[in-house]
Amino acid sequence: MIIHGIDPGLGTTGWGVICAQGNRLSHIANGQIRTNAKAALPARLLELDTALVTILGQYRPASAAIEEIYVNKNPQTTLKLVQARGSLLLGLARAGLIVGEYAPRLVKKAIVGTGAAEKAQIDAMVQRLLPGVQIAGPDAADALAVAITHAHLAGRPV
Amino acid sequence: MIIHGIDPGLGTTGWGVICAQGNRLSHIANGQIRTNAKAALPARLLELDTALVTILGQYRPASAAIEEIYVNKNPQTTLKLVQARGSLLLGLARAGLIVGEYAPRLVKKAIVGTGAAEKAQIDAMVQRLLPGVQIAGPDAADALAVAITHAHLAGRPV
Repeated sequence: MIIHGIDPGLGTTGWGVICAQGNRLSHIANGQIRTNAKAALPARLLELDTALVTILGQYRPASAAIEEIYVNKNPQTTLKLVQARGSLLLGLARAGLIVGEYAPRLVKKAIVGTGAAEKAQIDAMVQRLLPGVQIAGPDAADALAVAITHAHLAGRPV
Repeated sequence: MIIHGIDPGLGTTGWGVICAQGNRLSHIANGQIRTNAKAALPARLLELDTALVTILGQYRPASAAIEEIYVNKNPQTTLKLVQARGSLLLGLARAGLIVGEYAPRLVKKAIVGTGAAEKAQIDAMVQRLLPGVQIAGPDAADALAVAITHAHLAGRPV
């Protein structure tokens, strides 16, 4: 099954598409969607949505997975991020996808084996689990990691 | 011009449509969109979006206005509310609408004259400003108030 992973963000949203066949995982594509920081929030959400719709149309995933968000130190930044996540969730729902939501700690635990894993460890494991992958950037790496987590925890065909 | 006001919420989103011609305001419609509290978040966002798309198609507003949100005492509740707001903003942007965003205090000041106005004062002024209006509930009243605020501050034709 094809799984679409998302690391949500307003400025940069990472995405990664993988194929899971039983225990075998393979990389299909990954990238980062950037929005115009000078545009108004609704316009930026539309930029994200337009890119998401294009990617979903291109790879036609059977399911989706996205990172959960917690309120961080800067509430105004969090508010924008969370609105971006909401509009991405809507985009996935409009495409008829069931969405798995995973806490960052759970993703780390699923990929590296510990919820306190460093970013470099995540990257290294993503590279190992998806041989030959060229990762577009840190947000794309996180998106691939959440897609892999979904494959491990929920993505296997019964 | 027809203005669509929104008081965003995940469980209940209020909406109100008014017509502003110079200084004259008139009521067109208002209501409250409720989502299924037992459904997953993406499905609830889709319920909101489907209702919003229907309302926008029916009344074809020229502009939209929405209340701003601040982090409240319960961060988890806020996170859901903010994601609902994000998906509503996306719905407005997809319809090609420019969206005015107004802080609750600003709405109160525009309607009653003080940012510390009580809810009952807002309701009374909305009733006075939109003669004959039947208000569907408190969230619809807030949505009409934000639409009126937009008419006062940004909605007049130049």
